[in-house]
Amino acid sequence: MKKLMNQPENYVSEMLQGIYKSHGKDLTYVNEDLKCLVTTHKHPGKVAIATGGGSGHLPLFLGYVGEGMLDGCSIGEVFQSPSPQQMLEVTKAIDNGAGVLYIYGNYNGDIFNFDMAAEMADMEEDIRVESVVAGDDISGTTDISKRRGVAGIFFVYKCAGAAAASGKDLDEVERIARKVCDNTRTMGIALSACIVPRVGKAGFNIADDEIEMGMGIHGETGIRVEKLKPVDEIVAEMMEAIIADLPYSGGDEVAVLVNGLGATPLDELYIIMNHVHDILGKKGIGIFHSYAGEFATSMEMAGASITLCKVDDELKEYIGAAADTPFFKQFSFE
Amino acid sequence: MKKLMNQPENYVSEMLQGIYKSHGKDLTYVNEDLKCLVTTHKHPGKVAIATGGGSGHLPLFLGYVGEGMLDGCSIGEVFQSPSPQQMLEVTKAIDNGAGVLYIYGNYNGDIFNFDMAAEMADMEEDIRVESVVAGDDISGTTDISKRRGVAGIFFVYKCAGAAAASGKDLDEVERIARKVCDNTRTMGIALSACIVPRVGKAGFNIADDEIEMGMGIHGETGIRVEKLKPVDEIVAEMMEAIIADLPYSGGDEVAVLVNGLGATPLDELYIIMNHVHDILGKKGIGIFHSYAGEFATSMEMAGASITLCKVDDELKEYIGAAADTPFFKQFSFE
Repeated sequence: MKKLMNQPENYVSEMLQGIYKSHGKDLTYVNEDLKCLVTTHKHPGKVAIATGGGSGHLPLFLGYVGEGMLDGCSIGEVFQSPSPQQMLEVTKAIDNGAGVLYIYGNYNGDIFNFDMAAEMADMEEDIRVESVVAGDDISGTTDISKRRGVAGIFFVYKCAGAAAASGKDLDEVERIARKVCDNTRTMGIALSACIVPRVGKAGFNIADDEIEMGMGIHGETGIRVEKLKPVDEIVAEMMEAIIADLPYSGGDEVAVLVNGLGATPLDELYIIMNHVHDILGKKGIGIFHSYAGEFATSMEMAGASITLCKVDDELKEYIGAAADTPFFKQFSFE
Repeated sequence: MKKLMNQPENYVSEMLQGIYKSHGKDLTYVNEDLKCLVTTHKHPGKVAIATGGGSGHLPLFLGYVGEGMLDGCSIGEVFQSPSPQQMLEVTKAIDNGAGVLYIYGNYNGDIFNFDMAAEMADMEEDIRVESVVAGDDISGTTDISKRRGVAGIFFVYKCAGAAAASGKDLDEVERIARKVCDNTRTMGIALSACIVPRVGKAGFNIADDEIEMGMGIHGETGIRVEKLKPVDEIVAEMMEAIIADLPYSGGDEVAVLVNGLGATPLDELYIIMNHVHDILGKKGIGIFHSYAGEFATSMEMAGASITLCKVDDELKEYIGAAADTPFFKQFSFE
């Protein structure tokens, strides 16, 4: 295991201490628990949004807590869910009197714990909580309710966050979040594994000349193992599957996210982006905005994912709104 | 070689096409040469700033072209300098009538080519050009004039860019850039090599249980090879060398940059940041602002660097100014 760390059991807490020391003006924690992270910027009357999930995916999940996006996040150890109590503490801290929306990825542990937290918030604290579960990864199943949440959750955060910031009520923010989920599809590929610090070795192997199409961000098995080939061929396969799934059609307009899983250089993400644009152009699908970079990672895993989010005027306004979190910043655009 | 690319000879041009397709509102190229990149936002009367260097370091170099930072950039193939003619074309395109400042890293090829471009700009185009060569890497030599430019150049871009945007003249912008160079020191470590696409294999190897202290961003030999150990010990060694070099002293205030070389996860950068803050705190050195992320990379190399930039009120104003490039965005702060 070649990681820049100290004791594996301190991996998450030392990372969090580094984050609080760097971004203390904007981020703090509650209940004396570093893993219960909240914004320092309260907006009375605004719908609050919380997320959560395992560590090891920075800037997911906590990186999107900030102005124009999320209000709080509870995180677990690497690839582990936070507890219901942690989610409840975050919920209590961020509630501005207008209710709280949970947005998180479709993993059993998270669902169980978030549902319990929502129930406690309602029963014990009289805070109304609604939940939107993101499942944008088309790999592995045609049953949408069983799909994993991966990088596409960025667009859900972005739009719901902007809607909440603009003063929409909980029903509206929830509707926007669901609308983004309904219009967002992702597919990923992995070139190498990652190592959970406490485990100390890779949970699986990928041969030097192979890639895994459709692998999840915790190393979940993909659709198939393929030989490494020119990336344009890989992108064509991914785009064909993504486009057919919604489906996206000529005349549609989309936002694009080419996400790096960790070790893959930005150069390669833009080589992918180049071909994504060509394919969308040939299909007559317009491109509203393109994001490339690391938005949802698996530590040092090499690989990438492609996300399309079909947009209309409403979603374009929310995607183009300004956002200012310690890990994601954009000025507004149209 | 496990890269997401097509033909190695198209690596840079396809990357650039992806960048122009994504960021065409803000970036364009001149002289029909994708490698001569300039901002689309002209500001008559503003000092223009150009940089350049080899590819393979994104977001260096072109990633900092944008509002509040740089105006243009000429790039070469991976780890190769652009030509004097390319630099000249960029210079002509970005000149706003107030002269041009070149800011680039201390590498022989770049110096030779930038100097020739500056001479041509002066002789043929009557554009006054001044040059500031960044050499922030303390590894390998005590002779400051021989030091390599690495991630610390970010602070030079940031401050010179903000000074130019605020309307300072060429002499002033040059003075600010030199002041940042004088106050900035960096040291890096590598855990793994990277592969130049056209070469197809790593130029060197690092054993599974070893790290290279002081390695350059092209894989230049470092100070020494060490056994991998807890990162706090590695950070302590790096910080001792960096602090002693300027030296930075109790009562000073610094901006900190913990930079990932490519494959190292953000988690590990914040674990490093955590200890950097502790060490600075014990020394009585104040922290104005902390940046963690990928600012100057070597494609898929694993490793990190630490940069300190000693700041006063003038540099704090420039570091804290807003910037909006496709690859680096910040709202203003104090």
